[in-house]
Amino acid sequence: MGSQIGEIFKISIFGESHGTAIGCVIEGIPAGTKLDLDLIRKRMAQRKPGQGSFTTPRQEGDRFEILSGFFNDHTTGTPLCMMIKNHDTRSKDYEKTKSLLRPSHADYTGAIKWHGANDFRGGGHFSARLTAPLVFAGAIAEQLLSEQNIKIISQVASVGTVTCKSLTDYTDIEPLLNQFDETPLLIHSDYEASVLEEIENARNALDSVGGVVETLVLNMPVGVGNPMFDTIESELSYGLFGIPAVKGVSFGKGFDISKMRGSEANDAFIMEEDMIKTKTNHNGGINGGISNGMPIWFRCAFKPTPSIAKPQDTVNLETLKEEKLEIVGRHDPCVALRGAVVVKAVTAIKIYDLIRKEMSNG
Amino acid sequence: MGSQIGEIFKISIFGESHGTAIGCVIEGIPAGTKLDLDLIRKRMAQRKPGQGSFTTPRQEGDRFEILSGFFNDHTTGTPLCMMIKNHDTRSKDYEKTKSLLRPSHADYTGAIKWHGANDFRGGGHFSARLTAPLVFAGAIAEQLLSEQNIKIISQVASVGTVTCKSLTDYTDIEPLLNQFDETPLLIHSDYEASVLEEIENARNALDSVGGVVETLVLNMPVGVGNPMFDTIESELSYGLFGIPAVKGVSFGKGFDISKMRGSEANDAFIMEEDMIKTKTNHNGGINGGISNGMPIWFRCAFKPTPSIAKPQDTVNLETLKEEKLEIVGRHDPCVALRGAVVVKAVTAIKIYDLIRKEMSNG
Amino acid sequence: MGSQIGEIFKISIFGESHGTAIGCVIEGIPAGTKLDLDLIRKRMAQRKPGQGSFTTPRQEGDRFEILSGFFNDHTTGTPLCMMIKNHDTRSKDYEKTKSLLRPSHADYTGAIKWHGANDFRGGGHFSARLTAPLVFAGAIAEQLLSEQNIKIISQVASVGTVTCKSLTDYTDIEPLLNQFDETPLLIHSDYEASVLEEIENARNALDSVGGVVETLVLNMPVGVGNPMFDTIESELSYGLFGIPAVKGVSFGKGFDISKMRGSEANDAFIMEEDMIKTKTNHNGGINGGISNGMPIWFRCAFKPTPSIAKPQDTVNLETLKEEKLEIVGRHDPCVALRGAVVVKAVTAIKIYDLIRKEMSNG
Amino acid sequence: MGSQIGEIFKISIFGESHGTAIGCVIEGIPAGTKLDLDLIRKRMAQRKPGQGSFTTPRQEGDRFEILSGFFNDHTTGTPLCMMIKNHDTRSKDYEKTKSLLRPSHADYTGAIKWHGANDFRGGGHFSARLTAPLVFAGAIAEQLLSEQNIKIISQVASVGTVTCKSLTDYTDIEPLLNQFDETPLLIHSDYEASVLEEIENARNALDSVGGVVETLVLNMPVGVGNPMFDTIESELSYGLFGIPAVKGVSFGKGFDISKMRGSEANDAFIMEEDMIKTKTNHNGGINGGISNGMPIWFRCAFKPTPSIAKPQDTVNLETLKEEKLEIVGRHDPCVALRGAVVVKAVTAIKIYDLIRKEMSNG
Repeated sequence: MGSQIGEIFKISIFGESHGTAIGCVIEGIPAGTKLDLDLIRKRMAQRKPGQGSFTTPRQEGDRFEILSGFFNDHTTGTPLCMMIKNHDTRSKDYEKTKSLLRPSHADYTGAIKWHGANDFRGGGHFSARLTAPLVFAGAIAEQLLSEQNIKIISQVASVGTVTCKSLTDYTDIEPLLNQFDETPLLIHSDYEASVLEEIENARNALDSVGGVVETLVLNMPVGVGNPMFDTIESELSYGLFGIPAVKGVSFGKGFDISKMRGSEANDAFIMEEDMIKTKTNHNGGINGGISNGMPIWFRCAFKPTPSIAKPQDTVNLETLKEEKLEIVGRHDPCVALRGAVVVKAVTAIKIYDLIRKEMSNG
Repeated sequence: MGSQIGEIFKISIFGESHGTAIGCVIEGIPAGTKLDLDLIRKRMAQRKPGQGSFTTPRQEGDRFEILSGFFNDHTTGTPLCMMIKNHDTRSKDYEKTKSLLRPSHADYTGAIKWHGANDFRGGGHFSARLTAPLVFAGAIAEQLLSEQNIKIISQVASVGTVTCKSLTDYTDIEPLLNQFDETPLLIHSDYEASVLEEIENARNALDSVGGVVETLVLNMPVGVGNPMFDTIESELSYGLFGIPAVKGVSFGKGFDISKMRGSEANDAFIMEEDMIKTKTNHNGGINGGISNGMPIWFRCAFKPTPSIAKPQDTVNLETLKEEKLEIVGRHDPCVALRGAVVVKAVTAIKIYDLIRKEMSNG
Repeated sequence: MGSQIGEIFKISIFGESHGTAIGCVIEGIPAGTKLDLDLIRKRMAQRKPGQGSFTTPRQEGDRFEILSGFFNDHTTGTPLCMMIKNHDTRSKDYEKTKSLLRPSHADYTGAIKWHGANDFRGGGHFSARLTAPLVFAGAIAEQLLSEQNIKIISQVASVGTVTCKSLTDYTDIEPLLNQFDETPLLIHSDYEASVLEEIENARNALDSVGGVVETLVLNMPVGVGNPMFDTIESELSYGLFGIPAVKGVSFGKGFDISKMRGSEANDAFIMEEDMIKTKTNHNGGINGGISNGMPIWFRCAFKPTPSIAKPQDTVNLETLKEEKLEIVGRHDPCVALRGAVVVKAVTAIKIYDLIRKEMSNG
Repeated sequence: MGSQIGEIFKISIFGESHGTAIGCVIEGIPAGTKLDLDLIRKRMAQRKPGQGSFTTPRQEGDRFEILSGFFNDHTTGTPLCMMIKNHDTRSKDYEKTKSLLRPSHADYTGAIKWHGANDFRGGGHFSARLTAPLVFAGAIAEQLLSEQNIKIISQVASVGTVTCKSLTDYTDIEPLLNQFDETPLLIHSDYEASVLEEIENARNALDSVGGVVETLVLNMPVGVGNPMFDTIESELSYGLFGIPAVKGVSFGKGFDISKMRGSEANDAFIMEEDMIKTKTNHNGGINGGISNGMPIWFRCAFKPTPSIAKPQDTVNLETLKEEKLEIVGRHDPCVALRGAVVVKAVTAIKIYDLIRKEMSNG
């Protein structure tokens, strides 16, 4: 109840930031799939912290071990369990401040929900570290989708006040797809410097900063998604809001569409090379919750990393007194940076699951 | 697969705009509940079209009949089926233009998904009329939540370029709660005139206009919601994106939070009358996917009604030729108006379901 | 929670014996299916009581009405709601004895579970009448399975001490398949007289009698079923134990296999017309929870109808005193008789659902 | 899809007999539970093979490691992952005969289902070894149930032609409960010698033998179970048929009830110490799918171990020729023996899950 995503391609996430191990059990990988372990490693590297001054310096390793469902380099059709041992866990960083509730973290809600039995170290099960198994599973989904030529591209679209060019404004997305396959950061090279400067400024101010991740799903077949509730929007947003720090999800023109008139917002149908297309894509490739063949297009808003070095006002859960909190330890000043590859992973998981469900429709 | 929402308080929606009947089957109403039929009728009236020039003039009636699970005025604990017969169905309006794909409607995606077997009349299962059973079920959830003093308020927050005062900016929300219990429209009286003028302008231009609905859940207990994926954000957004025309959902400061710094976005913990509260509520009452006792606060972006009187470019699905389409028939120029009570209903359904699930945690 | 069966071909049952209506909502019928309404009517007639002295004389009518998901004689792909109005409901038969707990009925458990709010008339939601929507849905599944040449045959295998020849002992099952397509009772003609005599004897003794229903699923593809828990045995038994009065389910040799040795029980593999088959079928066509291509073969034990005319010892729920109960009203003396077509329906629903799930495996 | 059981107390099983590790992820253990690790070890020892000549001599170890959801000796409320490394895996035993389909095993069905990608060694995911994580989870459920004084007793009720006294025939079950808490085998001491002799005879004949396991759930509260389909019978049988080799499940008098008359089968209600009870318990403590407060009573039929030393007829999957097969390796001659503690574990899992679900009914 809670830590599971997908129905046919189904992932159970387990682990805490400072426990013995984190990992996942995946059901529904087709039997006989030769896993692209290089792709998995590339994606996990893009998520991995400690790659320079812009992400947390913790050296997590993220060396995964496959425990089941894998035989002679191929999947067997039965559940695949993947495990990453936790190593570099400076638990003592957290012991000292354990009853000081970190603002906008889950210390308070977790303590109440689980009657104080929650593993508070490093955020426990709430830790962004838990996105590592998501990225593992997402890379498998990405591989399986690419066999149907479906491609996903996610980029950092804005950080603080710096806004990058929208993915929908590129006439040729191919070069960016290629760049993002390999580069550690999912930022267009034209904007990398200014994005990183914005983050550095926040860090220097002992602060953090939010951002937006933008995603396109390309070559999507028409007819995927099930109204009323298993719509593409419902299914994607359900998964995306499971990513720590995501506070908004919008499709197509998103919140801007609320200011538009119908004549402006509607996507007129046209014929293009004998195919039905739409002239614009303000609806983000989705009509009535079902894919219309245009790129699925959406944005996720990430809040600033709640762990900041600046002193903050808070409450001590044991004494119920107000206190000052100074967070030490290692933290990304901008979670949206590593968030991009996580958004891509969740998108791959959900889109692949929807396509598998669609197969059962005959 | 698709038309079901909730796990313990579970609703199966059925019906098409111009079929024999629409309705729902509800499982999980506690046995022995005396249903507040007046509340149900009030909420259904708030959703009902044909109440003046601002909503569609179709006289739907919405007279519901309870077929099961109801005995001596009380629920029995077994599935409750509710049915609304369709009467005023001018199906011929749709026959004429049935192969002309209405832009930003589900005509095209529905036809492809269901191989042309979909009931195209009035949007079929995609019709906003299908929100009537949602409002029915939502009113029952509202009654059950109010027994725990949990209250939900939804308002039209903006229409086109007209923006109303945010619900979070009222020092006393009680008068608005009372107003919205009875009034046909969920707009603060200070803004009603300008909102309706904005809509009238769109209509006079043979056009439609989008809007935003804003919601607060008051008196929410701490500790509801299950990470990683059955978070309050995930569960609510899953349901909200099932409402036709919703294209964005954001919590707390939403997309604006992506521009903020952590020191500004973080909600500091404070003691208030011996209770832990937060000074601000930028996270919308949710930390780590779990309620923190502050009001749950979120916004939904509605696109403009896709049915507009202006001529539009489209494709004829039979001939695969481009054609002009002129939509006749009766349509709301702004779905966000009736959308507010639907958002409230979905919120009630989802929050009540989450609370019921929480009860199983002991 | 409770009244739903199937995952992709999903049925929600609603209604009480003496309420306004009973029925079901079915999701997952392929769009564009031309429903075989004659087949549905034939199967519902086989379930219908009041067909002679051997089943309850209540004239239920069972005239069904399709409310949604059905357009121009074809399914639309969206939920299909079917309703049967209740007419001939002599509720007063039940009012008199409402606090006298009928032995082996659900009066006591229902009253406790639902705090006395249950609809006690005629067993409410527990009534065998609720199997009518199951048979409706089962007939649709039967039609869809027959398109893949999968056929199901269920027969009354024994009643009391009278045992019919096993379905597996017929060299040619075709004539029986044809007979059972049309006849009101699913009893081989050689045994009909003695079975009915056994029942008549019970009735004359103001008593009832139990029976066994035996089923074969023919032309089952190899590879359907998912270990460990979504095995064919798990899925079928889950559905079959939902049929009122079923107290045992066994596959292949069933309980007799516990007395066998491995060398005797094992089904040796052989080649037959270039196909892998087994020499015997003691495992009922299932190995490791997955179909092996041999007929799926199982038995369901039905208890005797708990409603008998003989006086019985019981307790008055209001006074908590022991009393004598004499049940009047109309009751089958042997539920297994009408149970055979219900078993067939549940089998069709579950096998069709498993096959649909298998399609999503690619 | 397949390897998961439970809804609120939810277990995902992973692993293959000769893979890297087996284990499970458990969601829904209440936060703050101090796990009774001794109880877990006792139950796992009762399942463990290699305890004398009567069970397989493989030394599995079954040393489990908890990877997550466990902190300072208590559960945290988040998913608990348990892993058992595989050590003593003589994979070569299986390589030699890998294309010879073992009769009544899942070699054939697994190979077809997973297109030859299944891990054939030792039965892979079908291996009885996969019941170790079930017993682990079952022991946790047993601990949690015992806090509500609910107790489960399972015994070997018969092996081949040797039949033990039924659990329902003991006037005082307490001594047997105590015995079975500690002893390696769940056989009443009066019958142990003859049961083991029956098994020894089968082994000496290079053969195996079937058996029946009988279970009682004591102190069950009234009102648990949800008609029509989430009945106690449906839920238990769903889980029990997931245990390898189970071919029949029956409640109360089971298949014998089909030969009884209503007057004999009905359980008359009586008052006993101010409580409503039934005079007999032919319905196994369940009316209308809901517990009536009497002991839940059921039987599971186990087939003989399919792996026997005697030569058998089979087919070579590669050559499609008929061949003789001689199985070497280590196998229980009677799986019902170790099956008893597995039945108890599945019962605990399912009953505890049903009780947790019931809590959400308020």
